[in-house]
Amino acid sequence: MTDTAAARKRTRGGGGAARRAERTSKRIDGTPPILRRIPDLPILDEAALEIIEHNAETILEEIGVVFTENPAALERWRQAGADVRGERVHIPRGLARKLCATAPSSFTQVARNPAKSVEIGGRGLVLAPVYGPPFVRDIDGGRRYATMADFETFVRLGQMSKWLHHSGGTVCEPTDVAVNKRHLDMLFAHMTLSDKPYMGSVTEPSRAADSVAMSKILFGEDFVDQNTVMVSLININSPLTFDATMMGALEVYAAANQACIISPFIVGGAMAPVSVAGTLTQVLAEVMAGVAYSQLVRPGAPVIMGAFVTSIDMNSGAPTFGTPEASQITYGAGQLARRLGLPYRSAGGFTGSKLPDAQAGYESANSLNMGLLAGVNFMLHACGWLEGGLVASFEKFVMDADQLGTLHKMAAGVVVDEEAQAMDAIREVGPGGHYLGCAHTQANFKSAFWRSDLLDYRPYETWYEDGAPDTMTLASARVAKLLADYEEPAIDPGIREALRAYVEEKKASMPDSFS
Amino acid sequence: MTDTAAARKRTRGGGGAARRAERTSKRIDGTPPILRRIPDLPILDEAALEIIEHNAETILEEIGVVFTENPAALERWRQAGADVRGERVHIPRGLARKLCATAPSSFTQVARNPAKSVEIGGRGLVLAPVYGPPFVRDIDGGRRYATMADFETFVRLGQMSKWLHHSGGTVCEPTDVAVNKRHLDMLFAHMTLSDKPYMGSVTEPSRAADSVAMSKILFGEDFVDQNTVMVSLININSPLTFDATMMGALEVYAAANQACIISPFIVGGAMAPVSVAGTLTQVLAEVMAGVAYSQLVRPGAPVIMGAFVTSIDMNSGAPTFGTPEASQITYGAGQLARRLGLPYRSAGGFTGSKLPDAQAGYESANSLNMGLLAGVNFMLHACGWLEGGLVASFEKFVMDADQLGTLHKMAAGVVVDEEAQAMDAIREVGPGGHYLGCAHTQANFKSAFWRSDLLDYRPYETWYEDGAPDTMTLASARVAKLLADYEEPAIDPGIREALRAYVEEKKASMPDSFS
Repeated sequence: MTDTAAARKRTRGGGGAARRAERTSKRIDGTPPILRRIPDLPILDEAALEIIEHNAETILEEIGVVFTENPAALERWRQAGADVRGERVHIPRGLARKLCATAPSSFTQVARNPAKSVEIGGRGLVLAPVYGPPFVRDIDGGRRYATMADFETFVRLGQMSKWLHHSGGTVCEPTDVAVNKRHLDMLFAHMTLSDKPYMGSVTEPSRAADSVAMSKILFGEDFVDQNTVMVSLININSPLTFDATMMGALEVYAAANQACIISPFIVGGAMAPVSVAGTLTQVLAEVMAGVAYSQLVRPGAPVIMGAFVTSIDMNSGAPTFGTPEASQITYGAGQLARRLGLPYRSAGGFTGSKLPDAQAGYESANSLNMGLLAGVNFMLHACGWLEGGLVASFEKFVMDADQLGTLHKMAAGVVVDEEAQAMDAIREVGPGGHYLGCAHTQANFKSAFWRSDLLDYRPYETWYEDGAPDTMTLASARVAKLLADYEEPAIDPGIREALRAYVEEKKASMPDSFS
Repeated sequence: MTDTAAARKRTRGGGGAARRAERTSKRIDGTPPILRRIPDLPILDEAALEIIEHNAETILEEIGVVFTENPAALERWRQAGADVRGERVHIPRGLARKLCATAPSSFTQVARNPAKSVEIGGRGLVLAPVYGPPFVRDIDGGRRYATMADFETFVRLGQMSKWLHHSGGTVCEPTDVAVNKRHLDMLFAHMTLSDKPYMGSVTEPSRAADSVAMSKILFGEDFVDQNTVMVSLININSPLTFDATMMGALEVYAAANQACIISPFIVGGAMAPVSVAGTLTQVLAEVMAGVAYSQLVRPGAPVIMGAFVTSIDMNSGAPTFGTPEASQITYGAGQLARRLGLPYRSAGGFTGSKLPDAQAGYESANSLNMGLLAGVNFMLHACGWLEGGLVASFEKFVMDADQLGTLHKMAAGVVVDEEAQAMDAIREVGPGGHYLGCAHTQANFKSAFWRSDLLDYRPYETWYEDGAPDTMTLASARVAKLLADYEEPAIDPGIREALRAYVEEKKASMPDSFS
């Protein structure tokens, strides 16, 4: 947080809402981002890493990458020394990595509640909810198209989830609002219903500009110029293609010093080679080209190396989640990101299951554990993801959000101070005794073990008499409880009104469009 | 397997059933034990490990361990140089570790089908099913006391589970057979319905002797004298107590050169201190005392360092599973086992859930992933565990057994040879193309991705029209299919008859007892 403090010091009069919120908002229990005190798992050795890095440079130089319908981008590349032929950019060996070097290895995303600002990079892990599903599911209503009301419910749940550090972006697609207007409603919901950090819109450069404009209303114009208050998700059209819409949004954000995740979106065997090493090579080439481009727009602009990679069921063509190959790629990409000196985004509570059932539990836990041990710094889709990302599930949201607590405890590592060594307790209890009543247990039991707010540990008989609820049923009750307990975080009424006015004016200025 | 071959060469005329089975048994698809090509996760640093090792020696010397009702054990300890006061054995600093040094760091457990023999230790991971539940559960019958018929069904499922290397021991307690006779029926089932390696009985020294006697019928007397054909589970009564029953079984097995897992059974906060470091210290002291004792009985006897540790819900006192503190202990104990030069047993598909639902999925996946990365060599309870080990679930058995495939693929590591680098494929496809039809994909897709035999990847509509099955429903169908496909592995009819006769004579020789 010292970077945040320093950044705030640099602003002159900015950060109005942030400072006002600090004075007035009712604090809801939250947990700072994870700071890992355990090592990462290095599944690739030095030789493998060097081969992959060498091959990635070969791809950039020999095959090149395509920037579609974007003459300005081509011109930037030409100026930087690339060999541009048509829309294809051949990047000489070493150039992309050199350009990447100006991107910060870590940066602060400021929240309007400064206690909830997050440092992204280093040994940190910031957890953000699911992004993008057009459908929602709950135990009563089943699966249906998502609406703005659903979106607001998810933002409230995110605000109430103590292990979740980030409000996210398109937690679900509010399909009842025109495509060219829904970003305004989504931003307004994140800004007013939550005081956690949030993401900007990327579906059009003008919508990215709206995100910046609304953030300036919320934080103050100078403050946004000098601080990063948004992280936005820029997908690469793998293989090796950067389209004008996504690059347009990236240009808006980078120019405004706002952060982007630059993320290949890969179903292995379809958008990348069917092998782990081949996929890692392509991912690295794509990320290096994208990050290098962000630094051509504005050297020093904060970016995150992304890797969204899943495997495919080669019989049906369906994407699969929580699988070992996706884990291997996630581990390997983490090693590559650290060698590139960039924060790393990957993993999540991934599953292909249609229901929040055992399959969802296995696959999501596989993904969440891998994310922690792969050194991920920003985990999108950490909770709520169902059915390969087509569905945001209310019950799954609180299930995953509860499991995120295990990552915090695991990452904290093992304390081996005198109290933790517990030698006096072992002496006191001795052979054949028990520890439940001993002084050491009494002094430490409250914080000794992570405790689920959801899972069932009751004796069989108690559970059976209570109707033998499965996890989905328990989760449904927890959703209801969190929403009943929800309180809107305080916000300056003038700022809220200005945001509302911006949304309404902007909506009135254009006809509805659904593309 | 070279050790096995060498061991077999040493025998003179032994290994009858093993050799006959090699010629006659119908091979069922199986997978050799996992050989890890990825590193372990070292969560404790050198300083922490040294503190724990120092403190464990302090416990052994200063507090000591108790061997109850076992004058012969006390005499062995006295002879070895320990300070024995009453039943309490104070082991001078360094003595236990020195005695542990004669235990092998790796050994082969021979199966009657030699293709299914397993190496236990080193970088290997052998997977064995759940052990001990008095209840079973299935989707139709719910929860009920386990019977011998249930036991046989589990052995058949284990034989049919391609990722499972071991038939296990008391997969469930056949409560319809007298306690003093059920071990005979269980051994007969493992020996005839499966050709995978199995575990012996530990509930009485005489039952351990029966296990050795029946194994000699199956493998030949000389062969058993010279090879390890059983691994059996010796629990320590934590804290620091070794009871006569378990030690009696250990003595029988060690004297017969059969392997034992020497395993503290710890609910953290009850049988060990509430802290991770304190628990690790006690676990190490207990294991060192137990392993050292096995080497006093027979130097060189194969043993495995066990650690069964779970946390506790300090509000209700219920044990909890798949929790971060249990993971930390499992990781740390693995580091301690490797420094002690012993094979390591821990982890499993643990859950406290009463149903094979999302909670079961999360907790089990947490435990299974931890087991792989903690360097576990022998994983008991790898499949079928439910409700804190009170219940063996048929559906959970096949769910977990399917997930064990992900551990195999993950452990295999990342190949980075020329084919895996896939540079020609990346050149062939180029920017904007897709890989589904390219030569590299066609050549590699069959083995590229692990494929579940259970989980659902179908499109929503197909799945919905099929009745929208959850994982439990899919698992129930898979249980039925595996049992329908089951074939009893071939066995010499004379050996089978001799085993049957042993069981019947032994049963007839004593009245039923239920203790």
